[in-house]
Amino acid sequence: MQNFDYMTPTRLIFGKGVISKLPEVMSGYGKKVLLTYGGGSIKKIGLYDKVKELLADREIFELSGIQPNPKYDPSVLDGVRICKENNIDVILAVGGGSVLDCSKAIAAGAKYDGDPWDLISYKVKAEDALPIVDIITLAATGSEYDCGGVISRTETNDKIGYMDEHLYPAVSFLDPTYTFTVPDKQTAAGCADAMNHIMEQYFCEDSTLLNDGFMEVGLKSLMVNVKKCLENPEDYTARAEMMLDCTYGCNAIYALGNSDSGWPCHGMEHALSAYYDITHGEGLAIITPRWMKHILNENTVSRFVKYGVNVFGIDSTLDKFEIANKAIDATYSFFESIGIPMHLKDVGIDESRINEMAHHVAVNEGLENAWAPLREEDIAEIFRASL
Amino acid sequence: MQNFDYMTPTRLIFGKGVISKLPEVMSGYGKKVLLTYGGGSIKKIGLYDKVKELLADREIFELSGIQPNPKYDPSVLDGVRICKENNIDVILAVGGGSVLDCSKAIAAGAKYDGDPWDLISYKVKAEDALPIVDIITLAATGSEYDCGGVISRTETNDKIGYMDEHLYPAVSFLDPTYTFTVPDKQTAAGCADAMNHIMEQYFCEDSTLLNDGFMEVGLKSLMVNVKKCLENPEDYTARAEMMLDCTYGCNAIYALGNSDSGWPCHGMEHALSAYYDITHGEGLAIITPRWMKHILNENTVSRFVKYGVNVFGIDSTLDKFEIANKAIDATYSFFESIGIPMHLKDVGIDESRINEMAHHVAVNEGLENAWAPLREEDIAEIFRASL
Repeated sequence: MQNFDYMTPTRLIFGKGVISKLPEVMSGYGKKVLLTYGGGSIKKIGLYDKVKELLADREIFELSGIQPNPKYDPSVLDGVRICKENNIDVILAVGGGSVLDCSKAIAAGAKYDGDPWDLISYKVKAEDALPIVDIITLAATGSEYDCGGVISRTETNDKIGYMDEHLYPAVSFLDPTYTFTVPDKQTAAGCADAMNHIMEQYFCEDSTLLNDGFMEVGLKSLMVNVKKCLENPEDYTARAEMMLDCTYGCNAIYALGNSDSGWPCHGMEHALSAYYDITHGEGLAIITPRWMKHILNENTVSRFVKYGVNVFGIDSTLDKFEIANKAIDATYSFFESIGIPMHLKDVGIDESRINEMAHHVAVNEGLENAWAPLREEDIAEIFRASL
Repeated sequence: MQNFDYMTPTRLIFGKGVISKLPEVMSGYGKKVLLTYGGGSIKKIGLYDKVKELLADREIFELSGIQPNPKYDPSVLDGVRICKENNIDVILAVGGGSVLDCSKAIAAGAKYDGDPWDLISYKVKAEDALPIVDIITLAATGSEYDCGGVISRTETNDKIGYMDEHLYPAVSFLDPTYTFTVPDKQTAAGCADAMNHIMEQYFCEDSTLLNDGFMEVGLKSLMVNVKKCLENPEDYTARAEMMLDCTYGCNAIYALGNSDSGWPCHGMEHALSAYYDITHGEGLAIITPRWMKHILNENTVSRFVKYGVNVFGIDSTLDKFEIANKAIDATYSFFESIGIPMHLKDVGIDESRINEMAHHVAVNEGLENAWAPLREEDIAEIFRASL
């Protein structure tokens, strides 16, 4: 068991109707609020109007149009500019993980005199950040309970996971009813994202009985509940359980004391969505089983056996490689069963830039130090196997 | 799934040698430190000297002699007095859960003008508290990661669980090597305490797949690891896993969204240790299987079936009451197997004050609203069955 230093100070306010606590929560900050959101979905479900009504006594500035795989330019830059020009006191992010990720970069940038990219690229360490409150409308990234965000810079094909301890949301509102209208495609991709967050932590050298058990039930709960959500999008209990499952994904509580896995699938997927702007959860689902097949060997097989037996109930008396291969196939089949396109060509990616992307990943993601080390040629092979 | 409002802002610094971060952590507070501890164990293991050496540049005041089942008079009152007389900036609690529980009451009392009992008895709500840093030397209560403490007042036989959101430790240091020298009796009692914390949350009306899985593996991990600790007290991995298992016990993360169980075994045990000053974990272990037998009926049996099958691996095809009874017997046998005295008479409690204790519990603990409601006569019966 490894040493660790852990804290997640975020307050989670969870359940149907909890937005009624918004005025009380926001009264703990100043008058000037930057409201950040994406497209029109929060208007469609009435959440935008509700927030404006509840915060009628605040001075609200807005940054809208934040996209999936949120962009440094214009979203982060615009947000920072609004904050600085108007002395914003607090950011209220309303939407999915992309809106919140973008808001975290804005929160740090607003308190920094230079180019916010200095922070995101870790050239400079943030010394402060604006407080963030969020209202989550998609069960997926877990950004509501961690201090990280992923920001894309289109001109350089960079997609960087940026973490800083100033960026834990102060308060996250999680009302599962806001996810009732999420399209099936996004519900499934959100599940795949959250499952991959767990897998990235599960497949490592050194874990504990407790962490393994947490992660195994986390995966099982996601698989059971996403199917219920897809069958009946207004199944409150299933939406609620899936929402909380996702919340734990990235705040490290699943892997306290575990050795670092290197998060290889995220490293590879970031290139796919940086180059092609695909849906992150779909990219992860496509890559994951190919990555598993690629790294399966005598050194790694025992983790796949544990995964297969405890998550998928595969007969533990079979040969270890048979269990491992069945587990990998079951992973693929599960993603397929919830409607995820399982080939890169299904999401518009062909052979043409694979070598370039593999090179980008090899240079930027440090995967030669992952649990199962990946060189540039391994990454290219995994991409090719995913076509 | 119930609505919830959850936050645990405590920073956990975990692992061998982490005390080297103590000076850096303490530098975030003022110069005047109240060092609280119990008997001589922290001196025997060299921790007392180490702390004094690391904090040589601080002004250290001391409160020692804090007992198990920590006492309002003299410990809490003395601590509050020292804090007020010397304008203490921060409390550093070094020891087990009792030292930390006592320090929490002191932290609140130090910032309150009246009698600290007003706070503990919930007559007055705390508005502030001194910051608390702790170094834990016993895996048991989970006080290092929650905002509660249990304080005993001898003259009234009160033992009150006191919680306030100001009382989360700011930082908890958890070095498993400090538990190497814990006597077997305390290792076993700590395990029983932590297991009961989980059971108190597991046996409820409304839980989730995720929470059930967390708690089932929490119980399994404690049972596996305590045996390793008893066999080889210097088994670092087992001590570390047990320590982290215990840490999660009382901060609610095992039961987010679950309905409240009423914590019946704690309600009953508090009377036992208030009247007889027994070891809390032993009292819980003695009561738990008798409580289970007493409340087992058509309404409650399904939870016992889940518990029996998932925690003890009992054959799920058996009759439900057979599974439940086997699970209860397995619980008893497990506690017995780690050396816990399993009868009240073994810990010096006889028939004489059972009715008085049952009345005290019935009046003070609200167990008529527990998951399986308990009236005064139920409580007396459970106590008698435990003799």
